[in-house]
Amino acid sequence: MERIDVPTSRRCELVDVTAEVNGAARALGVADGGVLLHVPHTTAAITVNEGYDPDVAGDLLRRLERLAPHWEDTAGGRDRHGEGNSDSHLKAALVGTSTLLPMVDGELALGRWQRVFFCEFDGPRRRELWVTAV
Amino acid sequence: MERIDVPTSRRCELVDVTAEVNGAARALGVADGGVLLHVPHTTAAITVNEGYDPDVAGDLLRRLERLAPHWEDTAGGRDRHGEGNSDSHLKAALVGTSTLLPMVDGELALGRWQRVFFCEFDGPRRRELWVTAV
Amino acid sequence: MERIDVPTSRRCELVDVTAEVNGAARALGVADGGVLLHVPHTTAAITVNEGYDPDVAGDLLRRLERLAPHWEDTAGGRDRHGEGNSDSHLKAALVGTSTLLPMVDGELALGRWQRVFFCEFDGPRRRELWVTAV
Repeated sequence: MERIDVPTSRRCELVDVTAEVNGAARALGVADGGVLLHVPHTTAAITVNEGYDPDVAGDLLRRLERLAPHWEDTAGGRDRHGEGNSDSHLKAALVGTSTLLPMVDGELALGRWQRVFFCEFDGPRRRELWVTAV
Repeated sequence: MERIDVPTSRRCELVDVTAEVNGAARALGVADGGVLLHVPHTTAAITVNEGYDPDVAGDLLRRLERLAPHWEDTAGGRDRHGEGNSDSHLKAALVGTSTLLPMVDGELALGRWQRVFFCEFDGPRRRELWVTAV
Repeated sequence: MERIDVPTSRRCELVDVTAEVNGAARALGVADGGVLLHVPHTTAAITVNEGYDPDVAGDLLRRLERLAPHWEDTAGGRDRHGEGNSDSHLKAALVGTSTLLPMVDGELALGRWQRVFFCEFDGPRRRELWVTAV
């Protein structure tokens, strides 16, 4: 297993880690098959989405914030978890903390516009992404 | 890797690809283990859900549209991505662009009511689904 | 493949199955690589999230209920599926019915606060979780 350090700088942020994931997959010697990305945190996630126009990531975060607002005005004090980051846990559950990506000839096989994003939902923090060959 | 062509005919649509995935898995010669389904697009996704009553897929799309509306009245012009399909990118992130399914004796091991659906969120288009043995 | 029985006792509930999944992985003899968890149902899901403070799971279910309410007041009778559990199918699609977890030295490799939760969205029922080595 390879561990990638992912420092984040905002509360919610999408960090493009495609190059780091490719490097880890090469270090693992995966030629063909799959590479498993696991986020070992409960308020962060991993996703594959468009990386060409940065506004896509921005819109995605803004829309996700409306689905899982940090403080819910309409919900009043319904959250009971004392840390005040229940929205972060929900965002992690919705987006998902792991994904498996195909490898072909020792490279991540991604679609033309696809990039791999580490999703920070309760930063800034020092995060990790675990990469395993399967 | 096997590539399945998935032509879609509406903006948002669930296409049952279970038979095609089973065929691709057989072509790959997977006996036991897992088969990885990867959608190489950023405005489409893959999910496993009920295929018996088509109203389930319809309700799912209608409810998803309320979570990620094409044009958000309440959000005004908040989306910045010029293509006007930020909802499609969010839907893809929520549902997910890949899944791994178990294989037993050369067949997809699914629950009684489960079918595999390619989720089109910005069609109609010609799409692909990539199938890899792991 | 190992099958874990998961009896549930409420309509919506998160059941910590980490110990059972570790047991199944050991029974399968997985040393390193990945273990695939597949929920063979269409109104249940699997997620990895915080297990230390039970309020996290409670907040998660309450927030998810607002995104996918059992009966939608604002949506009137828009759901067409006769069983009245379209919210359950949406919850399953959002959270996901399968996940792949890394194994290291015969143990699930999870982050410090991570636990594996079977998500019941239309219980109480007798459920299953399928565990496969990959």
